[in-house]
Amino acid sequence: MTLNILFAAKAERWDTYKQPLRDALVAAGLDANLSMDIPPEDVDYIVYAPNSELQDFTPYARTKAVLNLWAGVEAITGNETLKLPLARMVDPGLTRAMVEWVTAHVLRHHLGIDTDIQRNDTIWAPRTPPLAQERNVVVLGLGELGTAVCEVLLAIGFQVTGWSRSPKEIAGVTCLHGQDGLDAALAKAEIAVLLLPDTPATENTLNARTLNLMPEGAFIINPGRGPLIDDDALLAALDDGQIAHATLDVFRVEPLPADHPYWSDPKVTVTPHIAAETRAVTASEVIVENIRRGEAGEPFLYLVDRELGY
Amino acid sequence: MTLNILFAAKAERWDTYKQPLRDALVAAGLDANLSMDIPPEDVDYIVYAPNSELQDFTPYARTKAVLNLWAGVEAITGNETLKLPLARMVDPGLTRAMVEWVTAHVLRHHLGIDTDIQRNDTIWAPRTPPLAQERNVVVLGLGELGTAVCEVLLAIGFQVTGWSRSPKEIAGVTCLHGQDGLDAALAKAEIAVLLLPDTPATENTLNARTLNLMPEGAFIINPGRGPLIDDDALLAALDDGQIAHATLDVFRVEPLPADHPYWSDPKVTVTPHIAAETRAVTASEVIVENIRRGEAGEPFLYLVDRELGY
Repeated sequence: MTLNILFAAKAERWDTYKQPLRDALVAAGLDANLSMDIPPEDVDYIVYAPNSELQDFTPYARTKAVLNLWAGVEAITGNETLKLPLARMVDPGLTRAMVEWVTAHVLRHHLGIDTDIQRNDTIWAPRTPPLAQERNVVVLGLGELGTAVCEVLLAIGFQVTGWSRSPKEIAGVTCLHGQDGLDAALAKAEIAVLLLPDTPATENTLNARTLNLMPEGAFIINPGRGPLIDDDALLAALDDGQIAHATLDVFRVEPLPADHPYWSDPKVTVTPHIAAETRAVTASEVIVENIRRGEAGEPFLYLVDRELGY
Repeated sequence: MTLNILFAAKAERWDTYKQPLRDALVAAGLDANLSMDIPPEDVDYIVYAPNSELQDFTPYARTKAVLNLWAGVEAITGNETLKLPLARMVDPGLTRAMVEWVTAHVLRHHLGIDTDIQRNDTIWAPRTPPLAQERNVVVLGLGELGTAVCEVLLAIGFQVTGWSRSPKEIAGVTCLHGQDGLDAALAKAEIAVLLLPDTPATENTLNARTLNLMPEGAFIINPGRGPLIDDDALLAALDDGQIAHATLDVFRVEPLPADHPYWSDPKVTVTPHIAAETRAVTASEVIVENIRRGEAGEPFLYLVDRELGY
């Protein structure tokens, strides 16, 4: 039997994914018709981007699962027509890219290397930053990405504290949870890394109150989601020196509008949502593995808990 | 018996080291007179900086060892009056600092983050760098520092090749040696890290010929020693694009003279010999451990091979 796999995403994604997906299907021994145009009643699986035109899932009567192309699902979890199993993307390539980006910016702020990169004088002025073993880094969010980040920061020697909504354990990491745990974590966060999902409960995790809990002169690194930060509160905290610098990869509106104050603030580094993006080859292998599981009657990987929203 | 330990270094070092050394001597249970002024014939051990006034070791008849305050010994190995055992400093704090500095700059060049740090427009231009697992980093020099650097680069996921004069083995690292090995290592060095000692054999390791072996657009990171690089050849290779960028922490003359072209070259990042410096507390513990060994009749740690020069 030939499987009908609908690719429901923007056209430019199709160009990127059609060959890697077809290669992965062949490698898995699956006979499949992969297309952007299949009648809803014939679709077995949907490879899905939340910003695609497909928003009404009602007619997809025989579809077995919706397989998201990327990690964030906040744009689709509220869709009441979607009663099918929904799987997040957990792409090993994306995880590695995130670890690399976060580690680069943690070390950059830890060592203060912007001073060297931006120098336009000839002043020889040695300085001695603390060692990583004397530096507290706090990772908010201990999912796949946060856990992988903690492991590399530990290998470099940092003192790592992690925070998550519910209790977690990671060897070598001080793990805190709940609201009290968040306040305690932020109180020692010389460098804070935001890797929480975007849910109603995580919106404005960093706000005027919580930013003031942090040690004066702290650094913020946000490769997670834009709404995790109250932007006005952050700009004020940068202005008065409570926060020394923020490196931000994600924003409430993307691309970040040209008139947004983040662009011109010398204490903000804007990166254009590049910390981690899904890599077509590794992501296609994950999607096809879930299709294989569906056909073999095995449980799907990375199913979204619709109540928690991730 | 009270040991006489001469501190032979510049006065500002004395201010930094006298308390940590005394603390370490007490902790080791050693009864010692630590001073900058002891008659040569009474000195048991010399804590030594090669740039101190003490250059004639002839009158130190009963001295058991010269314990260098830092890793580089090139300024003293040629001193023919020095026939005493000479120990290099291998400071665990220095090693960690070096690993952090090198890892920061490897990731910085790997991900191209100068673009983000120096941006002064509002152009949202995502880019996808390769993953670390697709990037070849070559570490020249596999001593204490080079080995520690390799281990963290491996943990991040880089493809790591190491090169040393004589054969070495490090798990997970492609280890090459000898002149043929150097050429083969450089041929794949998208990012090269220089951690060789400064000896006649290592001078100008990177020269016009070897720079041209590297992949076009390679990055060079030198936290080792200034003379490892032929400066004119590097400036020419930067100029014609063979080398994309050089981050240099050490120079033939330090402080780097204000009129040196490295300061103004936009493809060069100058850092003021800060990659790793000896930390007084951890270094004092290493020096006192060697004194304890001398008194107990145990072999000294980190003795310099005077023929090899390190």
